[in-house]
Amino acid sequence: MAAAIALSSRGRPESAPNPNVGCVLVQAGRVVGRGWTAAGGRPHAEAVALAAAGEAARGATAYVSLEPCAHAGGRGPACSDLLIAAGVARVVIAAQDPDPRTDGAGIARLQDAGIDVLFNVLPAEARRAMAPWWTRRAEGRPFVTLKLATSLDGCIALADGASRWITGDRARAHGHLERAQHQAILVGRGTFDADAPKLDVRLPGLEGRSPQKLLLTSGSAPAGWTAVAAPESVEGVDSLLVEGGARAASAFLAADRVDRLLLYRAPVLIGGGRPALGDIGLTDLADAHGRWRLVDSRLLGSDRLDVYERIRTI
Amino acid sequence: MAAAIALSSRGRPESAPNPNVGCVLVQAGRVVGRGWTAAGGRPHAEAVALAAAGEAARGATAYVSLEPCAHAGGRGPACSDLLIAAGVARVVIAAQDPDPRTDGAGIARLQDAGIDVLFNVLPAEARRAMAPWWTRRAEGRPFVTLKLATSLDGCIALADGASRWITGDRARAHGHLERAQHQAILVGRGTFDADAPKLDVRLPGLEGRSPQKLLLTSGSAPAGWTAVAAPESVEGVDSLLVEGGARAASAFLAADRVDRLLLYRAPVLIGGGRPALGDIGLTDLADAHGRWRLVDSRLLGSDRLDVYERIRTI
Repeated sequence: MAAAIALSSRGRPESAPNPNVGCVLVQAGRVVGRGWTAAGGRPHAEAVALAAAGEAARGATAYVSLEPCAHAGGRGPACSDLLIAAGVARVVIAAQDPDPRTDGAGIARLQDAGIDVLFNVLPAEARRAMAPWWTRRAEGRPFVTLKLATSLDGCIALADGASRWITGDRARAHGHLERAQHQAILVGRGTFDADAPKLDVRLPGLEGRSPQKLLLTSGSAPAGWTAVAAPESVEGVDSLLVEGGARAASAFLAADRVDRLLLYRAPVLIGGGRPALGDIGLTDLADAHGRWRLVDSRLLGSDRLDVYERIRTI
Repeated sequence: MAAAIALSSRGRPESAPNPNVGCVLVQAGRVVGRGWTAAGGRPHAEAVALAAAGEAARGATAYVSLEPCAHAGGRGPACSDLLIAAGVARVVIAAQDPDPRTDGAGIARLQDAGIDVLFNVLPAEARRAMAPWWTRRAEGRPFVTLKLATSLDGCIALADGASRWITGDRARAHGHLERAQHQAILVGRGTFDADAPKLDVRLPGLEGRSPQKLLLTSGSAPAGWTAVAAPESVEGVDSLLVEGGARAASAFLAADRVDRLLLYRAPVLIGGGRPALGDIGLTDLADAHGRWRLVDSRLLGSDRLDVYERIRTI
């Protein structure tokens, strides 16, 4: 199942607005098919894995990160019907599909056809891998990642604004990979005016993945950019990467619209530089605790990346 | 040898002003004696290990983190003579002693007695374990550790000064352990006036280890404290822990008097709070690079501790 969930991440962000799902077919201990949701949402992961397995799917176990859909659409048959037709013996499901057209109906259809179904085996992990889709579906807003690249003392630039470069090549390459995994990127007006950032993905093979460009501004946006008046106004995307500067970052944090923090930290001290954040509305230290959980930490060259997730109790 | 170097750390800071040395005696693959420099500098590590081994020292190999001394003093015989008298067959030395009374003379005396000597096997590691003694001996100044406890965005307090508590219990306990390993602790005038810190070691069994208290001030110091006018004016100790605030930390960094950074970071965001550092004299980002190397990183509860060392080319 972990493999199916890992595969599901390959569908991000191109499966949007459909969920990114992963599927692994196992026959007598051997993987006979794998798949993930394709760009635009079709074909689904199960269809890809079944096509790869061919006759080997008969009697196999299918591991899927999300409940197979129960609704046939203009773009293809329902996955639960595909699994039944292929003769799989068993389906293991990480998380149930909250879409009212499926939500248990996929499981029921499989069981009615005599297939052994095990479900909700790794719901939290599956939801994390599909966080953008899940957040937009549950809350009608994008899943927001905030990127901060700072010195050890939390500065994003010298007092005169100089910020090239605080972090090194590998951290910057990782930042480009994050861009490729988002549908949209946002910067604030100050950063736009100062840096005129391109926000494209400069990684071999991923140049085509450059996301939509959003500008947080009360005014209008130049050609190629979309103006966004407030953190609450971002629409039409599942995933958003906020790249700076301090004012845009603070606005998203003050609105509690940040779900994930990427903290790239270089082994340098600046002292008296520009802080990563301005006021985010905190008045009592006790309120700051219990909001962020470290989920990943790694060295990128001599820089450190710490990834935190917002602890939400929804 | 790694074991001998690890043992040497147990002598810190109480062996000062003598070097903290570790010694392990191995006979036919078994450890027959261990020792480290005692409080006040005597007995030496070798004497302790030889006493523990007794007759088992005959024919043994002695691993010592620093070249055995060649000079007998009023407080005991030279360690090289002790090793010869005990009949050890072989001496392995991590680093040569820069003290002109020994500096190769210990090795020569052992060799003249027919003992097989291997030396300079782990000089950098031994020097790191004896960094306070080594720094004061080589540069006539203490080895300085700067402690910073910050939020993820590099703040040490809210804008109104509130800083209790940013980090958690385990990080604070680790801070007390660091206090116990230093001969002196320094705070700046602002921190003294605002917090009246006790700077004692609140750890069971280590209460007696509370170090000297220094106050960075152009004025005088209250009872129990020693006034220090500038980072360059600290005298009489091998090791100094700078605990804050931002102005004291910045003064030591601006003077390039910090050798080691302890960065405790809590998983909280403050935004618009008090920065960890003020101006440290940096005008070009390029100059900030290549100065600090990460040497340890660990989680203390939900806080992270990163330890950096100043890269010096002496």
